[in-house]
Amino acid sequence: MKIVVLAGGHGGARYTRGLRAELGNPPATEITVIGNTADDLVLHGLNICPDLDTLMYTLGGGLAEDRGWGRSDETFHANEELAAYGVPGSWFGLGDRDLATHLVRTQMLTAGYSLTDVTEALCARWLPGVSLLPMSDDRVETHVVVNDDEGQRAIHFQEWWIRYQAKSRAERFIYVGAPEAQPGPEVVPALMNADCILLAPSNPVVSIGAILSVPAITSALKQTPAPIVGVSPLISGRAVRGMAEQCLSTIGVPRDAASVARHYGSRQSDGVLDGWLVDEQDRDACADLAEDGIATSALPLLMTDVNAAATIASESLRLADRVRL
Amino acid sequence: MKIVVLAGGHGGARYTRGLRAELGNPPATEITVIGNTADDLVLHGLNICPDLDTLMYTLGGGLAEDRGWGRSDETFHANEELAAYGVPGSWFGLGDRDLATHLVRTQMLTAGYSLTDVTEALCARWLPGVSLLPMSDDRVETHVVVNDDEGQRAIHFQEWWIRYQAKSRAERFIYVGAPEAQPGPEVVPALMNADCILLAPSNPVVSIGAILSVPAITSALKQTPAPIVGVSPLISGRAVRGMAEQCLSTIGVPRDAASVARHYGSRQSDGVLDGWLVDEQDRDACADLAEDGIATSALPLLMTDVNAAATIASESLRLADRVRL
Repeated sequence: MKIVVLAGGHGGARYTRGLRAELGNPPATEITVIGNTADDLVLHGLNICPDLDTLMYTLGGGLAEDRGWGRSDETFHANEELAAYGVPGSWFGLGDRDLATHLVRTQMLTAGYSLTDVTEALCARWLPGVSLLPMSDDRVETHVVVNDDEGQRAIHFQEWWIRYQAKSRAERFIYVGAPEAQPGPEVVPALMNADCILLAPSNPVVSIGAILSVPAITSALKQTPAPIVGVSPLISGRAVRGMAEQCLSTIGVPRDAASVARHYGSRQSDGVLDGWLVDEQDRDACADLAEDGIATSALPLLMTDVNAAATIASESLRLADRVRL
Repeated sequence: MKIVVLAGGHGGARYTRGLRAELGNPPATEITVIGNTADDLVLHGLNICPDLDTLMYTLGGGLAEDRGWGRSDETFHANEELAAYGVPGSWFGLGDRDLATHLVRTQMLTAGYSLTDVTEALCARWLPGVSLLPMSDDRVETHVVVNDDEGQRAIHFQEWWIRYQAKSRAERFIYVGAPEAQPGPEVVPALMNADCILLAPSNPVVSIGAILSVPAITSALKQTPAPIVGVSPLISGRAVRGMAEQCLSTIGVPRDAASVARHYGSRQSDGVLDGWLVDEQDRDACADLAEDGIATSALPLLMTDVNAAATIASESLRLADRVRL
């Protein structure tokens, strides 16, 4: 069986780790993860891919579990020095071990390899047990139009997210480069040949939404014969981690699980969802999604550990089986 | 008074620190250091200038004094990870704090600044109390022709020095790019307007020799009205640190202080030396250098601490005064 997961960083990585555990490691099933690259940035001359790295480190056993991002056993000496030199960008949490990943990536990209090739090369070390694909080899960047004391301006998503901790009100998100971007060479084939496609409980705007901003990916999702099941990133209207609420407000989507599902839309009405997993607290509020053509299932969605994530992944597959019929 | 020092890394930095101490900090006298850049290398996509950095860190108080190279309070996590990724070049001791220097430098060079400009910018943080000039903004690289189990081949000086610890016999040194290289824009003016020029007790082949390999620098030394005094890097035929002996053997210069002076040559016979400071142990062996037109002075040359280096610097200036007459 071939399963494809669309994923951002933290939530996507934990969900995929649960899926891998559910399926056995190495899994009999082939898992392909399409990672968001619209968070990527060039900082200090380095090509940094936060979501791909979080996926790679989490699945490869190199994540700082307590922090939830970056490398375990990490130091931040290079970043301290960059700040001492007074160069801009030291608000980004650039770890010393993490730096090596960016150095290898930047060198390979400079030498002409695609991000897909580079990601495969990096994964040769981390052995994540999945095939990790960047959504695109083209440059796509989520910019955020903010309006604060410094006036209205567009800043890179990472700057808004990390430097300003999403406190500057976002007026708009722009997926720069997305309209012209092509999916990575293996992305559409993976989607078209999948037996099941899962949308991880990642941020619906800046993670999954950014992946969907690449036109050919959304087209493939609408055309693929595979059932598509998403997992709500909201529990009782709150994101477990990250700032999905702020992002949803910006795009005018109410902060509840049912509204996020309607935002993705049913495949029966030109959307990308067949099924939607919600937290048991949201069971009643989502009951009427069936009328929109979205099948639902409810269970605890808090990924407290790998087992909890595996249970959620397992129920995702069960719902996919149900909607496949 | 304007003093110019030609310097490699470790010995040059310690000598210059002594000179600065001797002259007071900030010195009434203007010190310009012309640093060797032929050790520079591009590694992991980073522009690394080992000698300039050793000078900058030593004079700026950031050197790991115990190790004698790289940053104090240093870790090597990025380098461990580069090795784990299996990329070549992890034999180079790339520290995490040090990395920040290379990142800033690489970014500025990529943006089009010259190495002279970049060095000035980096020094704005370190405040070395001297004007630190790269010998050239052009790429000059010392390559070493070795002949070992893997056959005859040319390797970068750093690879020979650090990876092979100078154990592969060097057949020849080649200063790649030197014949066409121009001195940095402030180098020749500094030499022509100096009141005194000092050759630090650096490696006469791969440090001072590499600086002299830039034709216009050697021409300026031959033409400048300033007296030129060198300090022997050998004490009783041995280098205090580094591998000057191996380098001298390769170019066929006997391993003693007098022979190194003759190798530099007297300015009276188209060389670059007016005076030569030797260790007291080498006093007798160097007595006849006067016949070659090189004035000498003898004192303990071991730079055990800043005071010892200051005494040597002071005696260098005294000898310069003597030969000026």
